[in-house]
Amino acid sequence: MSKKLTKRTEDYSKWYNELVVKADLAENSAVRGCMVIKPYGYAIWEKMQAQLDKMFKETGHENAYFPLFVPKSLFEAEEKNAEGFAKECAVVTHYRLKTDPDKEGKLMVDPNAKLEEELIVRPTSEAIIWNTYKNWIQSYRDLPILINQWANVVRWEMRTRLFLRTAEFLWQEGHTAHATKDEAVAESLQMQKVYAEFAEDFMAMPVVKGAKTESERFAGALDTYTIEALMQDGKALQAGTSHFLGQNFAEAFDVKYATKEGKQELVWATSWGVSTRLMGGLIMTHSDDAGLVLPPKLAPIQVVFVPIYKNEEQFEAIAKKVTEISNELKAKGVSIKFDKRDTLRPGAKFAEWELKGVPLRIALGARDLENGTLEIARRDTFEKQSVAQEDAVATVVSLLETIQEDLFNKAKNYRDDNTTEVDTFDEFKDIIANKGGFVSAHWDGTAETENKIKELTKATIRCIPLDALEEEGKCVYSGQKSTKRVLFAKAY
Amino acid sequence: MSKKLTKRTEDYSKWYNELVVKADLAENSAVRGCMVIKPYGYAIWEKMQAQLDKMFKETGHENAYFPLFVPKSLFEAEEKNAEGFAKECAVVTHYRLKTDPDKEGKLMVDPNAKLEEELIVRPTSEAIIWNTYKNWIQSYRDLPILINQWANVVRWEMRTRLFLRTAEFLWQEGHTAHATKDEAVAESLQMQKVYAEFAEDFMAMPVVKGAKTESERFAGALDTYTIEALMQDGKALQAGTSHFLGQNFAEAFDVKYATKEGKQELVWATSWGVSTRLMGGLIMTHSDDAGLVLPPKLAPIQVVFVPIYKNEEQFEAIAKKVTEISNELKAKGVSIKFDKRDTLRPGAKFAEWELKGVPLRIALGARDLENGTLEIARRDTFEKQSVAQEDAVATVVSLLETIQEDLFNKAKNYRDDNTTEVDTFDEFKDIIANKGGFVSAHWDGTAETENKIKELTKATIRCIPLDALEEEGKCVYSGQKSTKRVLFAKAY
Repeated sequence: MSKKLTKRTEDYSKWYNELVVKADLAENSAVRGCMVIKPYGYAIWEKMQAQLDKMFKETGHENAYFPLFVPKSLFEAEEKNAEGFAKECAVVTHYRLKTDPDKEGKLMVDPNAKLEEELIVRPTSEAIIWNTYKNWIQSYRDLPILINQWANVVRWEMRTRLFLRTAEFLWQEGHTAHATKDEAVAESLQMQKVYAEFAEDFMAMPVVKGAKTESERFAGALDTYTIEALMQDGKALQAGTSHFLGQNFAEAFDVKYATKEGKQELVWATSWGVSTRLMGGLIMTHSDDAGLVLPPKLAPIQVVFVPIYKNEEQFEAIAKKVTEISNELKAKGVSIKFDKRDTLRPGAKFAEWELKGVPLRIALGARDLENGTLEIARRDTFEKQSVAQEDAVATVVSLLETIQEDLFNKAKNYRDDNTTEVDTFDEFKDIIANKGGFVSAHWDGTAETENKIKELTKATIRCIPLDALEEEGKCVYSGQKSTKRVLFAKAY
Repeated sequence: MSKKLTKRTEDYSKWYNELVVKADLAENSAVRGCMVIKPYGYAIWEKMQAQLDKMFKETGHENAYFPLFVPKSLFEAEEKNAEGFAKECAVVTHYRLKTDPDKEGKLMVDPNAKLEEELIVRPTSEAIIWNTYKNWIQSYRDLPILINQWANVVRWEMRTRLFLRTAEFLWQEGHTAHATKDEAVAESLQMQKVYAEFAEDFMAMPVVKGAKTESERFAGALDTYTIEALMQDGKALQAGTSHFLGQNFAEAFDVKYATKEGKQELVWATSWGVSTRLMGGLIMTHSDDAGLVLPPKLAPIQVVFVPIYKNEEQFEAIAKKVTEISNELKAKGVSIKFDKRDTLRPGAKFAEWELKGVPLRIALGARDLENGTLEIARRDTFEKQSVAQEDAVATVVSLLETIQEDLFNKAKNYRDDNTTEVDTFDEFKDIIANKGGFVSAHWDGTAETENKIKELTKATIRCIPLDALEEEGKCVYSGQKSTKRVLFAKAY
């Protein structure tokens, strides 16, 4: 298999798929639409998980685990939610296989093992969780409930792409219960903020915080808060959402609490989630034609050492020095790989670690040993510098910080350069068709206009930015009065 | 709900179920046989996961993720494995629901959305993983593959019990591929050793390492290595298994590698797993009539502070002291809870934290403040001691270590006291029926005898201990020649 990738300018989508497979992140499986997350890809996901989990716990949440299956009667209890997910859910109807009498060595579904009630493989867990919360909540003293779950979910999507849209994916889903509306709204906004901080400070991926329009909301939510990122091809990616669910689920599952005054009130809900889709966002924010580019904070390997030697003796001397420097770096929390393979030439190793996005590569050869130097190469800029060995640790530590910042700034500049304010629909169409990116435009607030624009341009309203200024304006499509700009884009 | 538990001597099984629910570990869900793992229970599981994951990584394994579903054609490829799991697997047959035309607001399976091939919800992942490994393995350079997966699996068990046997459970499953038989056998033994170390050093649960007899092996394995623990009611618990799978899966999925010499050889396999069942083992090894007893290394809360005060002023002074000592303990890695609730009396708090198994409770009252003392109570022995505040940190740290050791020793003594060597079948039946525990006896090596004994006594061969001595003997049932004693017990 050639390690070379299709160029992004040639075919962005092909480049993406090739990168995901060749950098050992994930691959398609024998199950339609389901992926295998390979060890290197999973190691990145584990770093994301660990940081998110920490942030959830710091904001007072605990983890728990709820069943994979949702009985049909619970699934359909909250009407909008059920309607939103019914079209794409995997259904378990039987609980046993038996030997097929007509085909030797084959199994068939045992018709005598039909379930009385079908089980839906969870596409999201509001139903099963609120049915559980019902028993946990009696009085105001039982609130708030602040729970998160790390789990797999299944949505039977027809068109799938590795990480971005798969039938099964991994995610976390927070489900909280509150005594008051204000508290629930504050919780959903807080989690949007946590997601934005994670995206920007760890993924180095700038995001816009906003609210979804009614037609783009989560099924069953009164408000969906989103973080939206811009990919290198000018398409937007919804990277995380936090929903204010009002009392819809409390009503559907009859979850009430006794107030201090002894009154019975319905409970207020939120839910919020990010998924392995973030992996797609990470890849498409930073990577280039040579492969993956990883922000140091999420790189499973931050520094790779490649020895350059002609004989065993040289190798031994280099290995000794590498071990010495590695130990110092490890003590500072830097993760290291020493690529000792004798089956590959240094050039091939360089290409492989570039493909895999390791932020820093350190080459050490015989001449370096003589001169007391080594060569540090940045993955993001390909810049190389020769550094005195005694300065290696300090240089690495500082470069890792620099790269983290530079990646964010580069992505932010790209995002800003590709966010265009427009005031006419001709300009709107032109930008969406030719430049791409976010288009900031006035909208009259109707679903009708929103749908019409989508139909004509394939652009959707990504969000109503939380920090949108109040300004007098006219809807870019209908000419009706508007007081705020919203962000449009084509999206993943 | 009364917090008091049924006594173990009254009804062990009832005691167990009550404890699991009342200590907030888990509860039954709306889905038959599936449990909800509550935050406190999940926090213990997370501690187990973190430690096991560390041990897997230290032994060279990486994590990855494979699909939840196994297409029927892959599922049935390895015959013994398929046969072993066919009787209890959940089957997805459809991928969409639609509005039921006959029942308003209800959904029904959409008959037009029938899958061409049924999908089995994984009961274990050998099939899907070996179908993937096929593409990953070409040459000896691709071996070994050392992968672990943390996942949920489903086995449609008819009789379920929280943690011990549930339709869905959480587990880890290692799946490794090797060039040689020796390497694969060594791997499976190594992982058995890792499990035993985890059980003994972290769960404080002594285990016997052994091999399963043919009839007790994992479906598709050539050898199953097990760790077996003894619960307080004299029944054994299989706590973890590691399988040498030979070339069965390589053959079924045609997974071959080119040797250095260019020959094509079938790959050798192992798989190994432990699950949330360990939670059941943990509970039944240490807990008592007052509730859960946790070994400090797995306790989410190691020390709980309960203030005893009559007025706000006293509370403030106590809180100040608690914060001071807490900070010192936290710096030493001890996890703390300060129970400030003003809705409960100290006695009620004591009972609650006893129920939840917090290893140490520290009470601090107004008189303690005057005297510069505090009272430390051990959960495992109920021993209390008054300690000078300046000695609190050192005492706590040392007591946590002591408790960890004491729990192991107590459980080991119990296990040893309840392991009986017997040489006649009358004695065998008597011990199994009246005393319980492990029975060490000679066995003639035939499945026939094994089945007969099971039929007559409900005892099964838990394992052939790895350290069993060679000795001349006669089968306890058939009188045939035997060279080794094996361990029998009734089991969970």
